[in-house]
Formats: sequence, structure tokens, C-alpha cells
Amino acid sequence: MELKEKAFKSVSRKNHPGDTVVDIGGGVKIGGENFTVIAGPCSVESEAQIVEIAKSVKKSGAHALRGGAFKPRSSPYAFQGLKALGMEYLLEAKSITGLPIVTEIMNIAHIGLFADVDVIQVGARNMQNFELLKELGRLDKPILLKRGLANTVQEFLMSAEYIMSEGNGKVILCERGIRTFEGVTRNTLDLSCIPLIKEATHLPVIVDPSHATGIARLVAPMSYASVASGADGLIIEVHNDPENALCDGDQSILPSEFETVSRKIKDIAGLFGKVY
Amino acid sequence: MELKEKAFKSVSRKNHPGDTVVDIGGGVKIGGENFTVIAGPCSVESEAQIVEIAKSVKKSGAHALRGGAFKPRSSPYAFQGLKALGMEYLLEAKSITGLPIVTEIMNIAHIGLFADVDVIQVGARNMQNFELLKELGRLDKPILLKRGLANTVQEFLMSAEYIMSEGNGKVILCERGIRTFEGVTRNTLDLSCIPLIKEATHLPVIVDPSHATGIARLVAPMSYASVASGADGLIIEVHNDPENALCDGDQSILPSEFETVSRKIKDIAGLFGKVY
Amino acid sequence: MELKEKAFKSVSRKNHPGDTVVDIGGGVKIGGENFTVIAGPCSVESEAQIVEIAKSVKKSGAHALRGGAFKPRSSPYAFQGLKALGMEYLLEAKSITGLPIVTEIMNIAHIGLFADVDVIQVGARNMQNFELLKELGRLDKPILLKRGLANTVQEFLMSAEYIMSEGNGKVILCERGIRTFEGVTRNTLDLSCIPLIKEATHLPVIVDPSHATGIARLVAPMSYASVASGADGLIIEVHNDPENALCDGDQSILPSEFETVSRKIKDIAGLFGKVY
Amino acid sequence: MELKEKAFKSVSRKNHPGDTVVDIGGGVKIGGENFTVIAGPCSVESEAQIVEIAKSVKKSGAHALRGGAFKPRSSPYAFQGLKALGMEYLLEAKSITGLPIVTEIMNIAHIGLFADVDVIQVGARNMQNFELLKELGRLDKPILLKRGLANTVQEFLMSAEYIMSEGNGKVILCERGIRTFEGVTRNTLDLSCIPLIKEATHLPVIVDPSHATGIARLVAPMSYASVASGADGLIIEVHNDPENALCDGDQSILPSEFETVSRKIKDIAGLFGKVY
Repeated sequence: MELKEKAFKSVSRKNHPGDTVVDIGGGVKIGGENFTVIAGPCSVESEAQIVEIAKSVKKSGAHALRGGAFKPRSSPYAFQGLKALGMEYLLEAKSITGLPIVTEIMNIAHIGLFADVDVIQVGARNMQNFELLKELGRLDKPILLKRGLANTVQEFLMSAEYIMSEGNGKVILCERGIRTFEGVTRNTLDLSCIPLIKEATHLPVIVDPSHATGIARLVAPMSYASVASGADGLIIEVHNDPENALCDGDQSILPSEFETVSRKIKDIAGLFGKVY
Repeated sequence: MELKEKAFKSVSRKNHPGDTVVDIGGGVKIGGENFTVIAGPCSVESEAQIVEIAKSVKKSGAHALRGGAFKPRSSPYAFQGLKALGMEYLLEAKSITGLPIVTEIMNIAHIGLFADVDVIQVGARNMQNFELLKELGRLDKPILLKRGLANTVQEFLMSAEYIMSEGNGKVILCERGIRTFEGVTRNTLDLSCIPLIKEATHLPVIVDPSHATGIARLVAPMSYASVASGADGLIIEVHNDPENALCDGDQSILPSEFETVSRKIKDIAGLFGKVY
Repeated sequence: MELKEKAFKSVSRKNHPGDTVVDIGGGVKIGGENFTVIAGPCSVESEAQIVEIAKSVKKSGAHALRGGAFKPRSSPYAFQGLKALGMEYLLEAKSITGLPIVTEIMNIAHIGLFADVDVIQVGARNMQNFELLKELGRLDKPILLKRGLANTVQEFLMSAEYIMSEGNGKVILCERGIRTFEGVTRNTLDLSCIPLIKEATHLPVIVDPSHATGIARLVAPMSYASVASGADGLIIEVHNDPENALCDGDQSILPSEFETVSRKIKDIAGLFGKVY
Repeated sequence: MELKEKAFKSVSRKNHPGDTVVDIGGGVKIGGENFTVIAGPCSVESEAQIVEIAKSVKKSGAHALRGGAFKPRSSPYAFQGLKALGMEYLLEAKSITGLPIVTEIMNIAHIGLFADVDVIQVGARNMQNFELLKELGRLDKPILLKRGLANTVQEFLMSAEYIMSEGNGKVILCERGIRTFEGVTRNTLDLSCIPLIKEATHLPVIVDPSHATGIARLVAPMSYASVASGADGLIIEVHNDPENALCDGDQSILPSEFETVSRKIKDIAGLFGKVY
């Protein structure tokens, strides 16, 4: 079953010469010749935590900082993020390290808090929250769109089309694993979609090996495989104390592990003509 | 793998004596001894269309009218519903037939238009749009919550918990098929979840055989199977001109077919002590 | 995505007037107007066990006895069945009760032991063991073909075609659940396939609610749903001591529960013009 | 959900010091420091075809030749392979090029024809044909065991255990894609399983990017990703005339493309301390 390419307009490579390179601020670009790494904790837990992690991932080569202030959780009784306070801490980490920040939006009513955020993330559960996509399409700000757990590549690109159809062309796609019968990993990382997406669209596409596998020990090999598959970057969960993380500790690597991974990524990216 | 029942609070049958019966207006109830059928087109297309269908499904025994005014579509270029105008037509059909109406919300900003709607539907794609769930949880109005395409029963009940945790206990669950490798049907109807859900929660649960199968010829047998599985009701797509329907014509049955289905449902429901 | 009906020859309803009714001996038929119930334990454990269960399920209305002598197990270290001795016990139960017997073959080299077996079962894991299918196609004996865990309806019918292409037209199909992301049930029972299969082929199709769900409490409601979906019969695991069963105790119902289920099945079958 | 490691005996890394290196003849080894590439057509079509392809893949660096003589096909009416004649041609190609050969067995009754075959392949559809596995476990010959379409890593390793429990420790595992809802690729390549398998077992594991994706254009990037994920080798479909291939032409690459892929694989393998 082929992709139905006729359904694509703004996202189609046929209608756009060359690769889209999204400038996310601080001199950092995603797409084209660049290999870009976003790193940081699942959620912002305290100012000290986010600043410390930001410093260490920057030192190891990360180009941007991730961290959740608003967290989508299956249970209403689970930690939902520090919200406005988390945003403050993120911006503090940005001002100290200069790293552009990437954080998730769950409600367009919160948009005021995102004014100084560099990249707004749409999580997997909201990939087909079309009303949110349209609102984000009216902004002039990079959007990181994650693939839904049960969404096809066709639907993924159509959701990017929702954003672009409203005028915002700064869309970064992110594969983060799909739901299958295999439960030994949190999700099943679908790397085959990377070259398919690169063929079909000019938009950059990155990989989230942390959510895809849910297992910290698999983050390194899946990061390497992602580079080799032709991805434009990675978004990796790094935590300075995974065992006590408020969220997703099992899939977070230590700053020291990130440094090793980062060095190896650089070597592999070089083989593919990518600049890390 | 068992359901993790400890995660359930308000939705848990352990914390609630007997079945919840949701009164959706017009003397219609869902849950308990009742077997309730909601019927109508995928989307409201014109006043004449919705009124004609409403009259015919009422005559055949439907208890409530469905019809989409806001339509979630994979493509931004597909028909997105008549929106405010569609709501007007729906309310007109309600005032003529007395049938309570069920229609989908996609954006909490639209809530003003839903004041006279009897049941607000949350579609599969928004099952984990937690911000929307929380807002709906603050209303005093029945919510029809559809199971997401790739969501487990555990997650489905946790999303109901999101609504209930804010105070709204009028939640009606709806199984509508999950995504699997089998593509000959639009989705795979998971009827085994019905008795599991009935065990775990006091909330009523109905089935949507139209979206589950995507094939009009399968709506009748899957409706019958749903009754026999222990469901509390059905939501069925009925269109007076499926071939020219603006949306989902392939899965819509004719009013005349609905009449036949309705009669048979009554017989089966009787065997299970349900009043249709 | 439609079934590719052109691929079907012998199995196609287009090439065969009316329903195939398979005579499995002892006056028992599967297909057409008949609703046929096969019951018995997962595996034959002793002569006393199988004879006792056979007597009780016969009393409650079962038409045939199931019981495994050769058991396909994921682990080579798990109980693999009583093999030749199990066959002896099964035949003893047949001679005492007159119930035709249904048991699984895993290796064509064992065929000599199956001479007096009434229905040879091909398990889900062997649905595409084409060499086995071809050998069974050369026999003049009913074959119960179970759908594979990850096989489409298209592939299922093509495997029946393998048997029929060698001359054996006595094929009984059996839906027993498919593998999906939902792990709360052992598999996901795909009842929508029943009316699809009945449309496409003249062969009878039955349902195995025990393997489909893996949960004894779900066997009754899924049996009822199967009848209502248009199936021609059921194969149900019944054990007189589920807690100590050597295999699949969790999904086995007691003879007393089977009696209740059997009575209700009769009522539902009656509504669909089926004779139980 | 963790792997249940206690279920593993012979396959467990805990019970075996170091990596198993399987010698497949002709000086070729799989496992340990080696990165091994098996290449060739889906099926042997003629002596000229297989000899030509064998020569060209050898020149480009392949270590072994694949080619099917017995072909498992969904339809009994599809090309089933040249069988005994195909085996002759394969052996001719081996005698000319010196490449060890890898070919699939579907029926233990054919074993006589496999005497000079270097590696016997068990296809995905037979991964849980336990009778076949046990028979192959009694041979002293390398077995290439492919993961089933819907089988978990746990079950995959248990099937290897079936072979080893009979005495044959020369098992090579092969990930070849699993069945998911995503139909744009033939299967979904599950590369996350590679590091998981390497942790759990001492057996070598290779990847089949051709069957995993079903799309020739994806074979190169998925080969690269496989190396980077830590696999011990690849099995790649190469055909000199894909458009007229009797089987799986869509996923076969040309010898010239294989040469390019081979060169790049060498570079990546080098980064991981693997010798190609």
C-alpha cells in the first residue's frame, strides 16, 4: 500500500524545492545538512534540576533543551507537571545556557505561557487534535509534531498539513514508536518510516528513542540506528537522577551516558554527510 | 494481564453501588435495565436531511439522534462539518421529533453552541485530550466518551476518570473498534471489552458498529453481537442516501435497514432482560 | 480494503451453490441450519478426566468433544500432551459417549494415530504450515482450521484453499482471536470476520471464545455474541477442575457453567433460525 | 513488561560465556566480531539466474548466498519454487563461487535434499512449527530462525530453545519485521529487539530489511540502521531483474545497488568494532 501522495499539498516534497531547514533560535537549525540533538528530562521538577541537566547536556553537545511543564498522563491523579512554574524554570535554564527550549502544549488556552518557548511540541496523544493543530498553524513558531501511537505515516503527514495549511511552515516531525502486540518495549520504534517520510516531504524528521523503547539501555543503540536510517535529529530523555524522576525514569539516561552517545552519534552522522 | 483496578476511583464498580443510569433527556435513559439506540447520519448535511432521518429512525425505535456538526477529518481539505449551522439543524430536528441529540465537540471554545445538546460526544482521537476531558468534567451534562483507536481498556477507563474527577458523573462509554493489522474492516471491533468494562465500572457502555467495521453490511450482525455481549446500547449511522453522503457513506445503513435491525435488537435484548 | 475474491477458487461462495454442511460423524453436522457446539478440556490429562468431562458436556448439549493429545507450547519444557496415550483416552471417551472427537495434529508423521479421530484440528500456529495443509487436503476427513494469530481473513481463506485444492472439501473454519496491542485479554476476538467469511465462502465458520479471550468469565458473553454474529458453532474449553488444569485453566469453564451457557445459546440460536 | 528470562535455558546468555559464533562453512562465521552479509534472490528461478547473482554479490562482498527452492506462498496457485531442481542450481552456484548457501525448509520430509546446504532457514510462518524445530534440533547444521510475524521476542527465543533443547546449538536468529496496523511497509521492522536479544542470549542475530519493508528503496537505509543497532549481519534480497522476478521483486535491489550498500555497511560496521 503506497502513500497517497495526492493528499499532500504543502508538506509534499513535489511542491517544495529542497529540504526545509527550521531555525529554532540560538543559531540552531533542524533539517538539511544538520544533525540536531534535543536533550533533557521528561518533566521539569525544580529549577536546580533543569539548570543542572541543561548545563551538562549542553557540554556534551546537545543543541536544545527539552522538559515538560504540562504533562499528559493517563491518570488524572498522576503528577501533571509544574505548569507555569515549570515554564519559568525552563526559561531560566535557557537564559543560563543559551539552549533553545522545546516543551509540550496541551491546551491552546495556555499559549500565553509559550511566548518565549522556541519550539512548541504537540504530543502523540494530540496528533489528531485538529483544533489545536489549526491554532498552532496560525503562529510563527517552530512546531514539533509527534506521531500518534496508532497513526499511519499518511495520517502523520496530514496532521502536518493541518499546521501548514494555516500558514506555519516550521514543522518538525518526530517518530516516537507505535503501538503493537510487542509489549517488551513500551512501543515499537518504526524506523522504516524515516526514509519514507524523507521521500514524501521536505520537512525535517527526528526520532525519540526514549519514548519509543521505554528502556534506558536501548536509547543508545536506537539513537545510532536512527542516525543511520537518515533522521535529521534526536530528542533524548536525560535525567540526573532517573531512579527518583517524577516521570519516565526507566527510559532516561544519565548525563554521562548522554556524553558517550553524543560522541558516537557524531561519528555516524559524519558517515552520512550530516553535521553534528 | 489484568486491569489495574486500584487506579480506578470514581469509575470503579467497587466504589459505587449498582449501575449508573444516565438520563439523557426526553425520558431516555442509558444503563441499567435499558437498551438504548442512538441513530443518525455521520454528519448533518442540511435541515431537510437531518429532519427526515430523525423522523424515520424515531419511527423505527431509536431513542436519540446522532449527527456531526464539527467533524474531525484526517485532511484539512476534507469536509469539516456545517459547524454552527449544523447545530441549528440538529436542534430543529430535536424540536420536531423530541429525540435527544448527541453530537461531537472538538474544541472547548465551541462550548457555547452545545448548550441545548443533550449528550456531548468526545471522539476517539480526543480520548486522551485530557484538557478537553477536564473541561467537560466541570459540566452537568452527559458525555459520550469513545475509546481511542489504540487505547487499552485501562486507558479508556482512566479517561472516564478524568471527567469524573472534576465532578461530572454522567459518562457513557463507547467501544468503536481498535486498530490492528486486519485492514479488511476499518477497525477491529473489540467486543470482549464489553463484559470486562461492565465488571470494572458502574458506567454504561455502548457500541458503535458503524465506525468499528466501516462496512454497512456488517452493521446488522455486529449490532446483534453487541447486544448479546452485554452492551447497554448502540450508536448506529443511518443515512437516507449513503451513496451521496458527505462522510462515511460506506458504513451507513438505510432507514429501512435500520427498521429491520431495530426489530431484531429488541428480540435479542429481551433474552438478556434488557428493555428496548 | 476489500477481500481479493478473485484469489479464491474452491472456497468461494460464487463457485458453490449453498452452504457446505460438514458431517463429522455420530449424526453431527456443522454448517447450514445447524448450530454446533464442541466442548472439552484444553488437553487430555487422564482417562477419568476426559471421560467425566465428555459425559457432562454431552448431557448439557455438546455435539462433539475436544481435547488435545499433542499440545503446541511456546516452551519445549512445558507439558506437551499425553500424545498416543491421550489419543487412546479420547477414543475411549468417544466410545462411551458417542461424541465425535476433535483433536489437533502438529506433525503429518503422526497421522496413523488419527485414523479414528472425527475432526483433525490445525492450530493457529500452523495455519500457514502449507506442507501440513496439503497433506491434510489429501485425506477424506473433516479439518478444523484455526485462524493464525496475525493472519488476515484473506490469508485464512487462502489456507482453506490449500486444503481444498488437494481435494478435501470438508473444511471448518475457526476464528480464535488475533494479536493486537490490547493485552488485557489473551487475544482480541474478531467477530466482524464472521459475517465477512460467511459472505465470501460456503464453508462453515465457528468461534473459539476460550482462546480468544483467555478469561473464563468472558466465555459466556463471547459465546452469545458469536451466535448473534452469525457463526455456525462454538468450540469451548470445559474443565472439571480448572485450577489444577495442566494447560489453560484460566480460560476453562466448569461443566455447570457450560450447562448455563448451552441453554442460553439455544435461545439465541433460535432467534437466528439455527437449530441447536 | 520485561522478558521472562527464567524461561530461557540453553539460549540464555547467563548460561553461556561469551558470544556464540556459528561457522557456516567456506570460512564464514556469524556472531562475535563478525558482520556477515547473506545476499541473493527470493527464489531460485534458473541456473543462469542464481549463478549470475551469486557471482555479483560475492564480488560486492557478500559472505553467503540465499535463494529459495521451496517457497511458502499464501496461495496454493502461486509459484511454489523449483524445489529439487532449485536445490541443484543453488549447489551449482555454491560450487562455482564457494559461497555457503542458505535456503528454507518447509517439510522435514525434504531433509534429504538439504545435505549439502550450509544453513537451513526456518521461515517466519514456521517459527512455531515446533515439530519441525525439534527435528532440526537433532541435526548438526546451522539453522537460521526467522521471527514470526506476530511473535514476541520471548516466543522467538523460546523457539530457539526448542532447537537447542534437542542438541543443536548452531542457531542464528533473524528479525524480519512484525505485523502492525501500518500497511505502507510490508511489515514493521522492530530494530529495538536487536539490543534486547543481544542482552538476553549469546546467539547471533541478523536482520532481513527486504521482507521487513517490502520496498527496495528502504533496503539501504534499513541495512545501515541494522548495523548501527548492533546486529551481527544482514540477509538481503538481490535480483538481477527485479521487475520480472517470480517472487518479491518489489523488495529486491539490483547487484549494483547491493555494491553501494555493501560499501557503506563496511564503514558503519567499522565504527562498531565489527569486521565486515
